[in-house]
Amino acid sequence: MSRPNAEPAGARPGRGTLIIIGGHEAKEGRREILREVARHVQEKKLVIATVASHKPEGYFEEYEKAFHGLGVGELAELYVNERQEALHDEKLQALTDAAGVLFSGGDQVRITSQIGDTPLDARVREIYEAGGVVAGTSAGASVMCETMLVGGASRSSYRIGDLRMAPGLGLVCGIIIDQHFAERGRMGRLLGAVAQNPRILGIGIDEDTAIVMENSHFRVIGSGAVYVADGSGITHSNIAEAHTDEPLSLSDVRLHVLSAGDAFDLKRRQPQPGEAHRAPTRERG
Amino acid sequence: MSRPNAEPAGARPGRGTLIIIGGHEAKEGRREILREVARHVQEKKLVIATVASHKPEGYFEEYEKAFHGLGVGELAELYVNERQEALHDEKLQALTDAAGVLFSGGDQVRITSQIGDTPLDARVREIYEAGGVVAGTSAGASVMCETMLVGGASRSSYRIGDLRMAPGLGLVCGIIIDQHFAERGRMGRLLGAVAQNPRILGIGIDEDTAIVMENSHFRVIGSGAVYVADGSGITHSNIAEAHTDEPLSLSDVRLHVLSAGDAFDLKRRQPQPGEAHRAPTRERG
Repeated sequence: MSRPNAEPAGARPGRGTLIIIGGHEAKEGRREILREVARHVQEKKLVIATVASHKPEGYFEEYEKAFHGLGVGELAELYVNERQEALHDEKLQALTDAAGVLFSGGDQVRITSQIGDTPLDARVREIYEAGGVVAGTSAGASVMCETMLVGGASRSSYRIGDLRMAPGLGLVCGIIIDQHFAERGRMGRLLGAVAQNPRILGIGIDEDTAIVMENSHFRVIGSGAVYVADGSGITHSNIAEAHTDEPLSLSDVRLHVLSAGDAFDLKRRQPQPGEAHRAPTRERG
Repeated sequence: MSRPNAEPAGARPGRGTLIIIGGHEAKEGRREILREVARHVQEKKLVIATVASHKPEGYFEEYEKAFHGLGVGELAELYVNERQEALHDEKLQALTDAAGVLFSGGDQVRITSQIGDTPLDARVREIYEAGGVVAGTSAGASVMCETMLVGGASRSSYRIGDLRMAPGLGLVCGIIIDQHFAERGRMGRLLGAVAQNPRILGIGIDEDTAIVMENSHFRVIGSGAVYVADGSGITHSNIAEAHTDEPLSLSDVRLHVLSAGDAFDLKRRQPQPGEAHRAPTRERG
């Protein structure tokens, strides 16, 4: 479907890679997702941005341990306590020569309110545009979008007024990300977000699962599933008419479930099932 | 879409009504769902079948209180501790002259293993066929189906081998019910069930929400949402090829979200949005 007036869906123009993680990526054993981050950084510098957290203590040390043996050249921490610090050169130096940034979890609004439109924000974009990797887990995943999901019912019937959204870092357009997806039962609020404007593709990512996005294409890695809710064919929704405490009514969403090996073409809104999902691996009698 | 070789989807032929409840229906205040059950029973007898529970103490008393003032003529309890009791006339007498039966929550396999194919089972069908109401909440909802969902991942990434199904009471065909739907994050397993055979329409019901089914048509009541997953257009699934510990991969599910006032035509697999969801109820400036 052509969308002549909308910005094309996908990562912002640039040579880089976005790794958008549903939270709780494995930090021991195979560490498939962190290994993918490391593969992009190689022996260069990776910055762990713990700015989403009100109390960053321990986060960086946890990632230092988790990345051990994966071949990253250097790990550095970036934390900003007050927005004012984000305007100073001192913090900016943490990002010097970085080939990648990983935003850890916490509160996505903390990331945007502290570093949005600061030199730090601009530097993250430069790293991405120059071919680097920007990864984010949990809050760090949500924040990637132009419009990000910041709140709404988990594990309960979704009500129309439940949803809260805010402007994100805007590294990716045309999609909205939700994380801890299966674990926190967030289908209702993702559909609620899509219903608000079906131009936006809803992407729900389970824990220890990630999408690796380049341009308008992503593939899935990790142990869980990724749900893609395509609202372009919606024939009815009560989102504009119903009271805010009413539940959703929505017809004809196109839904895909993807897992490791699968890919997705954001421009065509088309899943590309992986080869591994086509070959029989067992017999039934 | 015509399905010439499959039994038509919907309630089994009969003059009765099925009220299929997602669990935790309100037992105080407006009690919309119990009020609907009572409306069908009128001043006749309603039997509360607590057989799903291993320890039925308190369930009947709770419903006695909950139905107070709703106009039901008589409430009786039906409990079966061992299957042998289900074969005796004594238990059957509880159902004499009943206009309705409500199966309470617990374990759906307890219902089928204790009363499946017994005179009690036959009597429940007779009540329904004669124009009575059969209601069920939680386990009592799942058990209505020809094939029922009995287990599978909640609040975690769905794995192909997670799903457990079993033969249900078969009061309704062509659908599979899941309950506590939003509250327990069960979209993954519902889609997993649908992927096994897209002939089956997946219906997930939130708590304090119910579908009221007559023939091949249902409408939604209560405070939450009902999710309908239609797999007839699925273009790819890994359900038969992947290992049991792998997550799902599934393309092109058609998904609807219904809430109070909406209805659904099971034969045409078509939602019928309620009038209340079409009329503007507020202005935005």
